[in-house]
Amino acid sequence: MELLDQTSLPHKEEWLVFRDYREVVKAIKDMKVRGAPILGVVGAMSIYLAYLEYKGKTDLDAGVMEAFNIISSARPTARELALRAKEVLDVIINYRDLQVSDIFEVVEKIATEGYIISSRMIAQAFTLLKPRSRVLTHCNSGSLAVMGEGTALGVIKEGYKRGLVEVVYINETRPLLQGSRLTSYELKKESIPYRVIVDSSAPYLMSKGLVDIVIVGADRISMKGDVANKIGTYSLAVSAAYNGIPFIVVAPSVTFDPSIREGNDIIIEERDESEVLYFNGNPVAPSDSRAVNYAFDVTPHQLITAIVTEEKIIYPSSEGRL
Amino acid sequence: MELLDQTSLPHKEEWLVFRDYREVVKAIKDMKVRGAPILGVVGAMSIYLAYLEYKGKTDLDAGVMEAFNIISSARPTARELALRAKEVLDVIINYRDLQVSDIFEVVEKIATEGYIISSRMIAQAFTLLKPRSRVLTHCNSGSLAVMGEGTALGVIKEGYKRGLVEVVYINETRPLLQGSRLTSYELKKESIPYRVIVDSSAPYLMSKGLVDIVIVGADRISMKGDVANKIGTYSLAVSAAYNGIPFIVVAPSVTFDPSIREGNDIIIEERDESEVLYFNGNPVAPSDSRAVNYAFDVTPHQLITAIVTEEKIIYPSSEGRL
Repeated sequence: MELLDQTSLPHKEEWLVFRDYREVVKAIKDMKVRGAPILGVVGAMSIYLAYLEYKGKTDLDAGVMEAFNIISSARPTARELALRAKEVLDVIINYRDLQVSDIFEVVEKIATEGYIISSRMIAQAFTLLKPRSRVLTHCNSGSLAVMGEGTALGVIKEGYKRGLVEVVYINETRPLLQGSRLTSYELKKESIPYRVIVDSSAPYLMSKGLVDIVIVGADRISMKGDVANKIGTYSLAVSAAYNGIPFIVVAPSVTFDPSIREGNDIIIEERDESEVLYFNGNPVAPSDSRAVNYAFDVTPHQLITAIVTEEKIIYPSSEGRL
Repeated sequence: MELLDQTSLPHKEEWLVFRDYREVVKAIKDMKVRGAPILGVVGAMSIYLAYLEYKGKTDLDAGVMEAFNIISSARPTARELALRAKEVLDVIINYRDLQVSDIFEVVEKIATEGYIISSRMIAQAFTLLKPRSRVLTHCNSGSLAVMGEGTALGVIKEGYKRGLVEVVYINETRPLLQGSRLTSYELKKESIPYRVIVDSSAPYLMSKGLVDIVIVGADRISMKGDVANKIGTYSLAVSAAYNGIPFIVVAPSVTFDPSIREGNDIIIEERDESEVLYFNGNPVAPSDSRAVNYAFDVTPHQLITAIVTEEKIIYPSSEGRL
């Protein structure tokens, strides 16, 4: 499996080659690959790597089960990682007479489906965009995070081609700067005008009337429509509501987790404090400082204007529940 | 004049010596010294340096007037910089028979007053703090920014000594990290427990019930009580209001600008895009990226629970106007 190292972007385009699922898990934890939908494909592929390792051995079942446990817990919030890994695991365990090519086909199907879902979400979302909108987005939800053009950023990129987007305000997205590093990288490639801003200034830009719509992705969604997404999303939703600006979430329907009713039940990953306290290996705070580093937050459905999936547009704030 | 270089903190405590006001102006623009109240003292001192340069010469008036224009426009949003420089300028221009020591006394009085005002604000603010509060603050409003203990951070530090503060959440305050660099530095020195957080996570901490009160400083306040303060303040105020958390501003009464009725009339400094696009000299976005870099924002009075000055506590949201 080959993955573009997202921690080296935008400065270096470095492809990493993986043959051992344990190395993939390390890359996931280190955020060399991130983004809920693409983590689904990577999760599926990782189980396939474990299958190649154990196939023909007596401990195949135990081996792929162990791999699943390690892979699925690498990052707890993004739903597709465990979900897609489980799909491949179930095929391996339940169908004993399949060939290697059959298992690979399952993985391929997941990846191909990703492309179709992405383009369907984008087509749905256009109805929500007025011409020449000034769009605000957070983190990265483009082709680095998703098979195809992306979720939120896919809508923005395709919207630009149709004259629906004038400029994109990109939240830099501290602490790991997926906005300034990755979303800028994607928009620059397509010559779409963008401005990078510090995250805390986004609400002020809204208050100044500079933002027409906020569009973000999602890592997991409760059945009520509460959205877990990159830390900082909740802040945008509160300020968008206060300023009467539409707040749109774009995510595949599998992002909804039937086992979770309330957003507060979603497990929010806390990452290492050093991500906040160091920058490029250099400390930004006094030694022995402590940090709190939630990787995601939860936006209650009341603050969300619409959730766009490949199937339909849901209006969680007005419907109350889905 | 000696100033601690705030751009080198917390890693290096380096004192800079100034004899030419033009170098002070450069240091102000480079944020080697920042914080509205201390900029007042630095502004006064800079006029004094210009006075020393031109005294006894025929172009004394023209010299100090030019100095005033350069100093007062170094940073437009903080009110005290121009205000205090003007106080010294007026004495020089209007009283021809004064000695050097008389002019220095004017500067000294401004500095001494700063200490008194700081301690009076702190004494006032205690009534707003419940025991063992978990306090959130933004940027730096402590002894680096103010003569004495500080405005907002002065309240927090003294409050801790009285058992009114349990822990301080410090917004790192992008792009220049005055929170993680300077506020942490001050709290560490006093062994006050703190946690650094990325700015965009503060609203999420509020929603989780982890924050009891938000306390910040101010750079300029309109007569209606709209507050200009470090970029990110508005975001905190919106989310504090949404979550029913008191939002307190601590600032000397001179921060109110009688010439400005509405917050939107306050001039908001836009700083160089490189502050957002580079980190320690290294780019964080693709080359040729553009940024928007407002240094401050405006929080409307409706979102502010109380403004504490050395004279009184004002409740702008309930009083409507002051």
